[in-house]
Formats: sequence, C-alpha cells, structure tokens
Amino acid sequence: MEFGFIGVGAMGGPLARNLIRAGKTVHVYNRSAAGRDATLAAGTSGLAATIMAHMAPCKVVFTCLALPQHLTEKALGQDGLYAHMQPGAVHVELSTIDSQTAFALAEAAGKQGVAYVQCTLGKKPAHAERGEAPLFVGGDQQAIAALADVWPILGVFNNVGTVEAACAVKLVSNLVGMANLAVLSEGLRIGEAAGVDKNLLLHLLAETGAHSFQLDARGKNMAEGEYDPPRFALDLALKDMRLGCGMARAMNVNVPLLDTVFALFGRGSAAGLGNKDCAAVHEV
Amino acid sequence: MEFGFIGVGAMGGPLARNLIRAGKTVHVYNRSAAGRDATLAAGTSGLAATIMAHMAPCKVVFTCLALPQHLTEKALGQDGLYAHMQPGAVHVELSTIDSQTAFALAEAAGKQGVAYVQCTLGKKPAHAERGEAPLFVGGDQQAIAALADVWPILGVFNNVGTVEAACAVKLVSNLVGMANLAVLSEGLRIGEAAGVDKNLLLHLLAETGAHSFQLDARGKNMAEGEYDPPRFALDLALKDMRLGCGMARAMNVNVPLLDTVFALFGRGSAAGLGNKDCAAVHEV
Repeated sequence: MEFGFIGVGAMGGPLARNLIRAGKTVHVYNRSAAGRDATLAAGTSGLAATIMAHMAPCKVVFTCLALPQHLTEKALGQDGLYAHMQPGAVHVELSTIDSQTAFALAEAAGKQGVAYVQCTLGKKPAHAERGEAPLFVGGDQQAIAALADVWPILGVFNNVGTVEAACAVKLVSNLVGMANLAVLSEGLRIGEAAGVDKNLLLHLLAETGAHSFQLDARGKNMAEGEYDPPRFALDLALKDMRLGCGMARAMNVNVPLLDTVFALFGRGSAAGLGNKDCAAVHEV
Repeated sequence: MEFGFIGVGAMGGPLARNLIRAGKTVHVYNRSAAGRDATLAAGTSGLAATIMAHMAPCKVVFTCLALPQHLTEKALGQDGLYAHMQPGAVHVELSTIDSQTAFALAEAAGKQGVAYVQCTLGKKPAHAERGEAPLFVGGDQQAIAALADVWPILGVFNNVGTVEAACAVKLVSNLVGMANLAVLSEGLRIGEAAGVDKNLLLHLLAETGAHSFQLDARGKNMAEGEYDPPRFALDLALKDMRLGCGMARAMNVNVPLLDTVFALFGRGSAAGLGNKDCAAVHEV
C-alpha cells in the first residue's frame, strides 16, 4: 500500500518520518524541497512528489498544513488532490482546522469516491517524532477501521466519532490552553504588584489549584520575558483561537471568556508579537 | 510556650490538631463547641477557650476565620484579641484575606506590641491534617524566624516576604484556579455542541496543553453535573475572587479576565448555586 503525505512541517514531518521508518512507501510533497528531503532522509522508502498527480497511486493521503485555505487550495479544483486520487482511497486530514472547512473538504472528497477522515493532533513535535502524539480521529468509520494497522505507527489512536468532533477536540484544547495562559498572566501581574518574587510565585502556584500545563510550560518564560525562539508562535495560537471561537459561534455556543482571550491575542499580534512564543501575551 | 488557636474549621482545625498532636499546649477557641471539642480530642494538651481573655498566656495566637470582618471583630476593640495579648507575643493570621484588612490588623497589633505574621494556606484540609499544606508566610521577619520550630509542625514553610505578598499568593492561587475552571467550562460547552463525549473529551484534554489541576479535580463533576457535597463552595470561591479582584484594583492592576470570571461566579451565586461546589459555575 502506497501513502501520500502533503506538508511535512513541525507536526506533519514527524508523522511522515514515522511511516518511512516503518518501511512504508510514502510520496512526500512539501512547499520547501529542503523540508521534504529532510523527511525523506528518515529512511529508504520515501519518494519525492512535486505535483498532485504524484498522489494518484496512493491508497491513503495525509495532509498537514498551516491554514484551512491552504487545504482547500491543495485539495479542490481541476488539478487538486481529489481530482487525482482513486475512488476508494482515503484522505486523512491532520491540520488544525474548523469544522466548516472540514465539512466542505469531506463533501468534495465524497464526490470523487474518496473517504474523508479528520485526525487532529495533540502534544508537541518531539512527541510526534516518537509516535507518542495523541490522534483525535473522526469521520468515515469504515476507513478508520481499515487503517487499524497504520494509526499506531503515527501516534496514540483515539476515536472521537465525527469530523466535527475531531476538529472540536483540537480547537478546544488550544482554546483552553491559551486561555489558561492568559489567566496565569493576570495572576502574575497581581503577584508582581504585591512584591512577590515571580519565580517563587510560580513555584508556589504549582503546588495549588492554580496549577496547569501552561504554568509548567510557559510560566518561567513569562516571568523572565523570554519569548524566543517561539515553541508555538502567538500568531499560530491566534489562528487556532479564531477557528475555535468561530466554530463556537457557528454552533451558537456562548464563550465570553474565550472570546476575550482571542481579542487579547489579537492585540498581541497587532503589537508586533506574532512571531514570538504565545507566552508573549503577557506583554500585551 | 503556650499557643492560642481561634477558628478550627476546615483548614484551621487540622493545623490546631497538628500542634496538639505534637504535644503543644493550645488554647482552642471556636464558634461551635462541637468543632472545638473535636479538635481538643486530637490529644491531651489542648484547652477549651471561650473568651478572648483566655488567650492572655499565649506567646503565639493563630486565627483561621472565614471572612475579613470576622477577624476585625475578633481582633480589635476593647475586649478584642489584641487587648488581651502580651507585648512581644505573635499573631499568626491564617485566613484568606485581602491585604487592606491585613494591613489594618498589623497596624493595630503593632500598637499593642504584638508582632503580626500573615500565613496563607495552600491545598486541601486532608493535606493540612497530614502537615502537608504549603504555608505562604510573610510579615514580621523576626517573629517568623523565632517560630522556626513551629512551622514544620503546621505544614510546608515558604517565606514570601511581606504581609501583602502572603495575601497575594493565596488570592492569586484561587483566582487562577477558579478562572481555569470557568475556561474549562466554556471548552466543554464547545465539545458538547460538537457531539464529543464529555468524559472522552476530558480524558483527551488531560493529554494536551489544556491540562490543569481543575480539570483533574472538577472536570468530571462538570461533565456529570454533580456539585454536592461541595468541596469548595461557589460562594467561598466568590468571596476569595472578590478579595483578589479588589486587591488588584487597589494596586491599579488591570485583570479583565479575572474580573469577568468574578462576575460569572456572582451570577452563579445569584442563581442559587452558592452552596454547591464551585464547579457548578458550569451551570451559569
């Protein structure tokens, strides 16, 4: 069985390399040839792809791109991915996208007889590289079942049901994480005004009900004002929050706190912090 | 050396019992005699106190009360605690109070020659009972040093510097914790609208950057709508947030997210959820 992989960046790269390390034939397409070649170097079973037509022999094509519009550009249209895929093949979409875009893709795929599976990703590139990234998988259940041997190569499989559910798990994860970060930022400001040593405060909060993943991951960066190099850029967080808050709005779910955090990140981006780590929201 | 202990409720009780278990002479005063006697039963070195004059022989008096006004009522005035304490004695105040109230107490104590130490408390009653509650201690540094042998009996000592810092650490802890809870609530709403199983969503979020103490402690209660018995009542959380947001305002620190969460808890209380666990903010 031949695989296709479109977009081998921070998260896509590790997953594509996991397939190549497992000896799978993978046709790798990437915007930058250097990124593509770095992924092909993970083994001997990867092949460079430079046009969508090279995805024709693939039974499964993965996509992992930065923005929803990149996906619709690549997948749809006369020379798009779906025009070249075989009926009966599967498109596994790995990007962080909104459910509206995912629905549009699934519908277009269906018209070509291509099954659509949304598989959003948890954790960080280092986890993905070790096959430890959680996979939040939803969509065509027959296709999901048919790939039972493939999921463990990629990461830790979780069936969440629908395409919408797969989008939601990832967007909720990012919304809640970024909101916890913004909340911590306000807490640190109070502590600072009261003269509490910032690193001591973080150390003490970690022992209380204020503890969070973001406190461990980014508290020190906030305390020290160190936001370079970005581990997750503020503008990428902003993009995910836009999608998440938009999805909430589309479903008539009222999320005033998350909307406020989204606006805060927007001000951070406008202030020129977009390429800094998202912890730079502390400077807004 | 004789000790006094005023207020042996959820958190004060365990600390007073730690002293009694260590064989210290402790004069125990409590609003309810039943609560007082339950604490005295922890050993043989406790004594029932029924009026502030009973605190006269104490070198150190601890207070652990629910509200700032309870403290000013007990401590100040002609027949208050300070009127009966010896010059050179120490008042260790354990309650969650705002720095304005703490300053007023410290000033009044000083006029009687009584040293004032603020020692706010982290974690839960069960930790306090085992001597594992973190102590956030600030104020008169000479008095703090003189009690070096006493702190380890009570819990895990941390010197945070000033009275204001001790108040801030506790209030920031509660503000951040309750805000993380409110953020999680909005995330669960999005997931629910997208058809994600609530318990599965919590399980998956725990593996991502959305993880928090509150997710572990109260996510399931939110998912199941179970808020009884309260482990930390919504009205107590509201009280702490009022103090914390008030302290921020008094220091000219802008905390729009925390203010929004405070208002949300206020609506929960107005809706009759005050005696439920704070996780009931999910129902607002």
